[in-house]
Amino acid sequence: MSATALATDLYQLTMMAGYFKAGRHQSTRATFELFVRRLPLRRSFLVVAGIEQALSFLETLRFDASDVAWLARQPQLANVPPAFFDYLREVRFSGEVWAVGEGTPVFANEPILRVTAPITEAQLVETALLAIVNFQTSVASKAARVVLAANGRPVMEFGARRAHGLDAALFAARAAYLAGCSGTSLVEAGQRWSIPLSGTMAHSWVMSAVNEIAAFQEYGTLFGEHSVLLLDTYDTIAAAHAIVDHRLRPAAVRLDSGDLQALSREVRAVLNRGGLSATQIVASGDLDEHEIARLLAARAPIDSFGVGTSVVTSIDAPALGGVYKLVEVTEEGRMRLVMKTSTGKATWPGRKQIWRVMENARAVRDVVALHDEPPIEGARALLERVMADGARTSRPLPLAAVRASCLDRVAELPPDLRRIDLDARYDVQPSPGVTAAIRSYRSTRTSPIITP
Amino acid sequence: MSATALATDLYQLTMMAGYFKAGRHQSTRATFELFVRRLPLRRSFLVVAGIEQALSFLETLRFDASDVAWLARQPQLANVPPAFFDYLREVRFSGEVWAVGEGTPVFANEPILRVTAPITEAQLVETALLAIVNFQTSVASKAARVVLAANGRPVMEFGARRAHGLDAALFAARAAYLAGCSGTSLVEAGQRWSIPLSGTMAHSWVMSAVNEIAAFQEYGTLFGEHSVLLLDTYDTIAAAHAIVDHRLRPAAVRLDSGDLQALSREVRAVLNRGGLSATQIVASGDLDEHEIARLLAARAPIDSFGVGTSVVTSIDAPALGGVYKLVEVTEEGRMRLVMKTSTGKATWPGRKQIWRVMENARAVRDVVALHDEPPIEGARALLERVMADGARTSRPLPLAAVRASCLDRVAELPPDLRRIDLDARYDVQPSPGVTAAIRSYRSTRTSPIITP
Repeated sequence: MSATALATDLYQLTMMAGYFKAGRHQSTRATFELFVRRLPLRRSFLVVAGIEQALSFLETLRFDASDVAWLARQPQLANVPPAFFDYLREVRFSGEVWAVGEGTPVFANEPILRVTAPITEAQLVETALLAIVNFQTSVASKAARVVLAANGRPVMEFGARRAHGLDAALFAARAAYLAGCSGTSLVEAGQRWSIPLSGTMAHSWVMSAVNEIAAFQEYGTLFGEHSVLLLDTYDTIAAAHAIVDHRLRPAAVRLDSGDLQALSREVRAVLNRGGLSATQIVASGDLDEHEIARLLAARAPIDSFGVGTSVVTSIDAPALGGVYKLVEVTEEGRMRLVMKTSTGKATWPGRKQIWRVMENARAVRDVVALHDEPPIEGARALLERVMADGARTSRPLPLAAVRASCLDRVAELPPDLRRIDLDARYDVQPSPGVTAAIRSYRSTRTSPIITP
Repeated sequence: MSATALATDLYQLTMMAGYFKAGRHQSTRATFELFVRRLPLRRSFLVVAGIEQALSFLETLRFDASDVAWLARQPQLANVPPAFFDYLREVRFSGEVWAVGEGTPVFANEPILRVTAPITEAQLVETALLAIVNFQTSVASKAARVVLAANGRPVMEFGARRAHGLDAALFAARAAYLAGCSGTSLVEAGQRWSIPLSGTMAHSWVMSAVNEIAAFQEYGTLFGEHSVLLLDTYDTIAAAHAIVDHRLRPAAVRLDSGDLQALSREVRAVLNRGGLSATQIVASGDLDEHEIARLLAARAPIDSFGVGTSVVTSIDAPALGGVYKLVEVTEEGRMRLVMKTSTGKATWPGRKQIWRVMENARAVRDVVALHDEPPIEGARALLERVMADGARTSRPLPLAAVRASCLDRVAELPPDLRRIDLDARYDVQPSPGVTAAIRSYRSTRTSPIITP
């Protein structure tokens, strides 16, 4: 991921110009935190994803000379001092970043990512950080629910064609896998991150052949143990009989339309009577966590699931409302904790850490504390420093390791949070330090000034 | 847009290998059509978008040698003849493409894009064409509704941070503009397609300043007539009074939270009493077509709107169910029309054209006919040939021209379709030729074979 620095909102540039004119690119360091104000409906937790791409964006951030020349011609920037454009040509991200590890469950009001940098740099990157982390986190959070519903049966992600473009397809495949999906159909994602690839056949393969059984036979010859035959182009049950009658031995058959509960039973019976009890049944076709749970509760004999649209678009919560808010400003050595007091959009001031309190290997509550408050005994700190002076402090983990850790951390959550049919709430408290900072800010109606 | 050829589902490659082994990459030309089976809820029409990016993808399609080497090592392709990988190294898209012009309203069962090519090539590109056209069309369709609701007032798209990644943000900005939005906040989109850029200020600008009025003053000094001051960081009405008291003259003020109807009235009154009747009011904050219509019906004094999440994710219909289906196969000179008869997923056979029947400059119904049926008098053919032998047949229009044409074509639709509160239906009929082909196919239960 290496995007242009123009992947930003115009106002980030106008504000940068304002900060620059006042010399604040040198005098002022700002801390912004990325968090979600409230969880979407039907999400009892979020699964963090996209941190890797966010860090790549920060590491490679720069303006091409031609982009700067173009910016200098825009009427909105006509009154900006020419030195600002020289500054843009040289600007790099030089800040410090703390982040929650990918695959970790988080909740509302918890900072997922924290940036401390010269105020110009920290402002510039808002749009990209939000676009990256909001999207991948929403897909990972949805995928985690689907994986929970499948209760151990593999879930393959097949959604590229319904994703928001090819790039979204790629990163959706990544997010779905790290949250517990077993693989993807998207070849590029398999190549990039060693995600197991899965593929069956399309209706066009069957339709373009002389007839259905010829299509199955040709495929079987070529792909042997990897053959997954698609049964529903014309008539699902007739197709199952034809497989038995022609003594094919596919690894699996796929059902993609109709009443999956009834069809899976009938197909299972036909295959078993034909000596194909080892042939598995894959179900697909607009599945989500609710439909998967319903099929399994009805004991439909389905061995694995293909999901697409619902996961790659997080269809019932397609936009995560993550925000990136200024929490602290240090200007010429004086630090101020700041907050926003807008109706319904107030924020918690100060640079923060999340403490996850564990009891008997189970997460019981989180405390969001100021960064420099003392650690909470028996609690795990979720934010780690991942970037210093604009450079990563560690190498990315292999995605399979992130996935394994995600499954462990989701399993630590209270049982109600892991139910897909409840909107359960987890206890997230502000620490005494955060509470005091809010009270102080609101009582004075101006920012409290703290000298470090 | 130049993506890797690995931006495809694994099964496209396994099917390609199967076609290749049977020599069908040389003997068989296939026609696929991209269409939507049914409109999403709350969409009376779709606005086509993404054709340009789809064509770019086709024109630049190729496999890197290293990608092919990687593919040859995948276990799923272990039995594939080695010559297939030589073929992949050389493969280019060499087909013919017909498409509906971007910005044109279309309906269910109407082919938006039609590909005729060697079956291997036509199959390979399915995933990418769907991902690109489904996404941009869904955003353009949503944006068209928002623009209708705003009833002539400018609508700026500010949604990058909630889009499905940076690429999605870029193409969402494009789709929103071509469907009638007046501009975008995303700088990269402004640069790429000359979309007017718009920006105000963020809460962080206000929060990082010594106080709110200092933030406004500094901004005004730098951006003069372009200044849009954000009022709701602390208290919207107090901020409006402060502007008047300090004799600032911003181009506009922005309201981003709270009761926009009441606040816009109060702010308007404060500004007018302070001699700032020329200062406009911009409203933003989770707006969609319904909220905009409600505000305007209540005569809220709002001059323009900023929309984000709802448009860039098409939030109430975030996945367009476009499909890409085989409709015709020509093998060694013999042409077959083909169709799928799955429950609820049947398709219309044959290579098709859309005829839009006009009466008094108003679209009254569409007819979907076989490509070689005679033209319908007084009707406009919507599909045009845009690519021949893998090369574009014309240069892309400037996006502003596409936008103008979109506004005209939406205005031609029946009035009920342009209402955002109705799920109105437009009349789309299969032609006699299509009806006969369906009947023939269903009666024989095998593909009708037509010798051209």
